[in-house]
Amino acid sequence: MSEDGDKQTAQHRLQQQLAFILEADRLKQVIRRSYLVDASRLENSAEHSWHLALMALVLQEHANEEVSLLRVLQMVVIHDLVEIDCGDTYLFDDAAQAGKLAREELAAARLFGLLPPDQAAEFYALWQEFEARETADARFANALDRLIPLLHNYHSRGRSWQEHGIRSQQVRDRLASIDSGSVELWSYAEALIEAAVAEGILES
Amino acid sequence: MSEDGDKQTAQHRLQQQLAFILEADRLKQVIRRSYLVDASRLENSAEHSWHLALMALVLQEHANEEVSLLRVLQMVVIHDLVEIDCGDTYLFDDAAQAGKLAREELAAARLFGLLPPDQAAEFYALWQEFEARETADARFANALDRLIPLLHNYHSRGRSWQEHGIRSQQVRDRLASIDSGSVELWSYAEALIEAAVAEGILES
Repeated sequence: MSEDGDKQTAQHRLQQQLAFILEADRLKQVIRRSYLVDASRLENSAEHSWHLALMALVLQEHANEEVSLLRVLQMVVIHDLVEIDCGDTYLFDDAAQAGKLAREELAAARLFGLLPPDQAAEFYALWQEFEARETADARFANALDRLIPLLHNYHSRGRSWQEHGIRSQQVRDRLASIDSGSVELWSYAEALIEAAVAEGILES
Repeated sequence: MSEDGDKQTAQHRLQQQLAFILEADRLKQVIRRSYLVDASRLENSAEHSWHLALMALVLQEHANEEVSLLRVLQMVVIHDLVEIDCGDTYLFDDAAQAGKLAREELAAARLFGLLPPDQAAEFYALWQEFEARETADARFANALDRLIPLLHNYHSRGRSWQEHGIRSQQVRDRLASIDSGSVELWSYAEALIEAAVAEGILES
């Protein structure tokens, strides 16, 4: 290829990357069911993804198996991008959970497809790995993703649980997979669920 | 130390880590001067930090020197935490920029001081490295941090520039350090500044 051709290809690649980065801005407008810790408003999926990345930095020592912090960070940064097309699927909405994966597959194809092909494949593989929860990195990343709404719900005095009529057994069922990523964090989560019930902010 | 003592120490460590993670939630309430790409609202520093992490994943190939993606991610995830105490300092507010570092040093000591001592030291060192811009990782992380408001401002039709009476030379001056992290991204930024002037959304 000529030098001009190389330059055009490089520019096209950067354009694709920036188009993806601009499209990703829309994740800041996807609203979750969790309130901020001070209960002042619901949080969005972009700031939630940042919070998970921070948790990964701080809590990696509690993973059951040795994890690659880099790969955990990559997964948590991109794990919710599909919500730009699908919205956030509430953890306790069984009906919505049913068709979730098929909807999100389409979203992943469209969104990651904005990137140059090598990066599209890399990001899609990371997202699939996160969803499949079959590797140590994915199990730990998922454990953080399940733990954080519990922290938010507990510290905002159960507001979201109460608004959606959630009971403690539902919380235990949905969060039990934390155990496969971190026994220590699951033990902490169980104690927090018990405390929430004892304090009357979560129905037993 | 006895087994009970070990367990207590481990629990205390986790309590410190979670206290830090909960305190960090306040970054979601620090408002920046940049609008979302669709100009619907101003963005906050937590979702901005996530956006930088995503940019690092996508754009690392454009760094001038080889960078550690892990260290770049660590830096961008924590770089704005000091704003919990100090607020966001507007890039074009010269007076506020003057006392910024001293204020942020105090904030860093308080916030990272919530963590166990080894992690407090690690996070503080990463934050200082980001601020000092003396390593390849820090220069690239800073380049992303300077580039993203330009993308936001350009795509929201210059709304924030116009509200604050910003002219193109100010933008060039403040963003020129992108060059030290990525010549390619600076070249792109320069073209975008020119386009913004040509389109009448940034005063020349």
